[in-house]
Amino acid sequence: MSTEPPPASAAAGLASSTELPTLSKIASSTELPTLSKKQLRKSARKAERAAAAEQQQMHPPAPVAEDPFVANYGDVPVEETQSKAVTARSWTEVAELDAAAAAVGRSVLVRGFAQDICSLGSMAFVVVRQGRSSVQCVLAANAGAGVSRQMVAFAKSLTKESVVDVEGVVAFPKEPVVSTTQQVEIQVRKIYCINRAIATLPFNLEDAARSEAEYEKPLKDGQQFPRVGQDTRLNHRPLELRTPTNQAILRISSQVQRKFREFLWSKDFDEIHTPKLLGGASEGGAAVFKLMYNGQSACLAQSPQLHKQMAIIGGCRRVFEVGPVFRAETSRTHRHLCEFTGLDVEMEIKEHYFEVCDVIDDLFVSIFKHLAEKCKEELETINRQYSFEPLKYLEQTLKLTYEEGIQMLKEAGTEMEPMGDLNTEAEKKLGRLVKEKYGTDFFILHRYPLAVRPFYTMPCYDNPAYSNSFDVFLRGEEIISGAQRIHVPGMLAKRAKECGIDASTMSAYMESFRCASVYL
Amino acid sequence: MSTEPPPASAAAGLASSTELPTLSKIASSTELPTLSKKQLRKSARKAERAAAAEQQQMHPPAPVAEDPFVANYGDVPVEETQSKAVTARSWTEVAELDAAAAAVGRSVLVRGFAQDICSLGSMAFVVVRQGRSSVQCVLAANAGAGVSRQMVAFAKSLTKESVVDVEGVVAFPKEPVVSTTQQVEIQVRKIYCINRAIATLPFNLEDAARSEAEYEKPLKDGQQFPRVGQDTRLNHRPLELRTPTNQAILRISSQVQRKFREFLWSKDFDEIHTPKLLGGASEGGAAVFKLMYNGQSACLAQSPQLHKQMAIIGGCRRVFEVGPVFRAETSRTHRHLCEFTGLDVEMEIKEHYFEVCDVIDDLFVSIFKHLAEKCKEELETINRQYSFEPLKYLEQTLKLTYEEGIQMLKEAGTEMEPMGDLNTEAEKKLGRLVKEKYGTDFFILHRYPLAVRPFYTMPCYDNPAYSNSFDVFLRGEEIISGAQRIHVPGMLAKRAKECGIDASTMSAYMESFRCASVYL
Repeated sequence: MSTEPPPASAAAGLASSTELPTLSKIASSTELPTLSKKQLRKSARKAERAAAAEQQQMHPPAPVAEDPFVANYGDVPVEETQSKAVTARSWTEVAELDAAAAAVGRSVLVRGFAQDICSLGSMAFVVVRQGRSSVQCVLAANAGAGVSRQMVAFAKSLTKESVVDVEGVVAFPKEPVVSTTQQVEIQVRKIYCINRAIATLPFNLEDAARSEAEYEKPLKDGQQFPRVGQDTRLNHRPLELRTPTNQAILRISSQVQRKFREFLWSKDFDEIHTPKLLGGASEGGAAVFKLMYNGQSACLAQSPQLHKQMAIIGGCRRVFEVGPVFRAETSRTHRHLCEFTGLDVEMEIKEHYFEVCDVIDDLFVSIFKHLAEKCKEELETINRQYSFEPLKYLEQTLKLTYEEGIQMLKEAGTEMEPMGDLNTEAEKKLGRLVKEKYGTDFFILHRYPLAVRPFYTMPCYDNPAYSNSFDVFLRGEEIISGAQRIHVPGMLAKRAKECGIDASTMSAYMESFRCASVYL
Repeated sequence: MSTEPPPASAAAGLASSTELPTLSKIASSTELPTLSKKQLRKSARKAERAAAAEQQQMHPPAPVAEDPFVANYGDVPVEETQSKAVTARSWTEVAELDAAAAAVGRSVLVRGFAQDICSLGSMAFVVVRQGRSSVQCVLAANAGAGVSRQMVAFAKSLTKESVVDVEGVVAFPKEPVVSTTQQVEIQVRKIYCINRAIATLPFNLEDAARSEAEYEKPLKDGQQFPRVGQDTRLNHRPLELRTPTNQAILRISSQVQRKFREFLWSKDFDEIHTPKLLGGASEGGAAVFKLMYNGQSACLAQSPQLHKQMAIIGGCRRVFEVGPVFRAETSRTHRHLCEFTGLDVEMEIKEHYFEVCDVIDDLFVSIFKHLAEKCKEELETINRQYSFEPLKYLEQTLKLTYEEGIQMLKEAGTEMEPMGDLNTEAEKKLGRLVKEKYGTDFFILHRYPLAVRPFYTMPCYDNPAYSNSFDVFLRGEEIISGAQRIHVPGMLAKRAKECGIDASTMSAYMESFRCASVYL
């Protein structure tokens, strides 16, 4: 979002945190709406009580004077959030608050979560967070700036994770702020609470955002941070989503899909949506969820495979789908999920299944580059909590035959059945061996033994014991499975029939491929 | 896909359909692979039999000579489709075959469906279709061009909707071709059948592609085209998908989503995927599909609403989802579907629900413009079968209040309850009235009576009988419903609990909006 340029007077010099600009410097476009007198008196009384309570703890009770700055703070009553007016006020993104000289002295208006609230003598500090970005907001009683003692007390009374609107002036902090992402602070002129969180949250966000190393360090000194268990996290998922790492994961997930689509669009693929409620099981190998559909038995689609194929037969030469896949798995691992989002591709093959491998090669290299370029900060955020090594990949993706893979494993001392399938352990080991030898975390293994692939896989031309199929590996885990399909007479028609479609008369391109379950 | 430039000798003059270029003019990069002798003999015998059969009908039987051009045609055996080799041959798109002088004389290689096969004396004509584009391919026995009588007979023996590879030279037809989209023809040098369709399809594609006008015209002369019923179409959906209209609809559907995403990405929205298997019903108003999930009762999500809200509460300020929505509807209309693809948006509101209306305004205007610009031909294709008027919309979308809408209906003689809901008929009539008065098919109706909206809708600031809600209309049909939400204490938490999530302690932005069920 665009923000107002700073007034020339403020931009000319760097205001320190003690040089408070006067109210006249605040651009009118960022002023918060004035609350009604009744509402304000209510808020003021509340803040006064809070201030009085604090005073009582520190000093003997003193008579509370009427606050002339009562309009500058308070809990916003519901009426004020009822779309009262379109003010066209200009909001600033916390991420855009940088330490460039031009920013200092500027009036800004931000909305965010009160991540941390603390007091230092007569001052209050509120860290306001938006997404992965945070900024320190400072309040010190100062009649010239319109900040009363009661207003400081109101800020101190805020609860963590409340939603707050802060209006103030950007300044350099006296000392560098280590606990926020932004290196400037906001000297608060107005502060309102839009939505007050309960005082005791199920867990502190800081505790949910710590890395293993941060947990282990104080243990040596006999101290301990509270750990937040998986169940607690999932039971309070909206709260846990607010950690910088989860914000980064959601953003990266969105960006992976974005690049996936942009790349495929550029290669003339169309996006389709296939039905999820089917008359029969769509994939033989996986367990199926069954339900009743208007008195008939129905299944949840375990794969969009059949309908993707029908799109190709229907003359759509290149299609993809991003959507839910349902499998009634009894085990629960990151590779056995009852519901996951599948990224599926199906395309006509003109001559050779390498045409598909080439699309995958270019697709993934473009996604990797996009993430490295556009999500650098998000990757760093995740790396701080869950440490990982940077991804290694080649400009031209390595293709190994299954035979070559088996040979590498044998030479490294792993006993392998030459025509058997790779188990998880062998896949991981092969990933390590390939990384050592070729310097890549990402490669394609092709020409699998026909016996370990589904019955509709096309055998190799020169040796029918092998097949025109491939798996794609990322860090030693299979993330894609694909193949050229064979035209088993009646096979597709039979499966279509089970799903309620009479396809007995279809003429078809039967060469196509499937690329499901892309985890990143 | 890029294609080879034509050889200079061929490009220099315009070849007529009788001036057949010699084989040497055909670029080697487009040559089809040579089949093995055994395969070829098999194909040749088949074609000879077909040629002989035809000869018998027309002439007395004559001795059949060995065909020197037997390698230039035939049914491709399965072995040839088994990813035998990467030849890097250059394929041409039918849509790119234009009548520009530069194209004429060029050698091309295309794969497509044999849409129509007919013979005229000793010549064969095969119309090859790719997507919505089609081109006429001509065969005439010509020893100099490598085309034998048997090859022409092979072409005549092709069945409709078979997959064929055609290699030939682009030429101007002697007479304009009215039955194809492309205004050039291909003089065939080689033709192979990749996949032969059965001789009698469940219906002819032409019959499935006719408009009502086309059906009605011959009726006056006592003639009749076969009609293809809805059940037949759906039972053979892969075949029906091949009609130009369906190809256009699929492309437009893909393009609507594409622009939807591109616009929202440009406005800092992230794409999310919410669970479809829930512990309880996600929307009170709609019927729910129930199923068993590992011994527990589960529901299919009727709306992503709850999880979208949780994403906003979780600090994701702008999210969208494109995914399946499940409703156990008992009626079956285009507005009552058991499964449809919903385009859902949820965003933080800073001040006023008009912020959401503005996003919708810009979003739809950008989609309309994108379609008019990028899908002009697709819209024309659909219009030929299902006639429609061009969409009318305003650069700045019209916003009417519910009161204004009711007033318009009253003035037009429709009796209306001032605080009642609009029924389908009233919505349609309002659409017509708005189009007459404002010249737009697309508008936003807002400030609905609170009583006709869901309980979590925010009342208006100035009159609690109305609400901060809106519906969006396209050609008199509601396509979007949205509102500012109210924070009913415990409401979201209760609903979350029903879906298996403990959200009792959430602090929330409760201002957000829902935009579901976008049909276009």
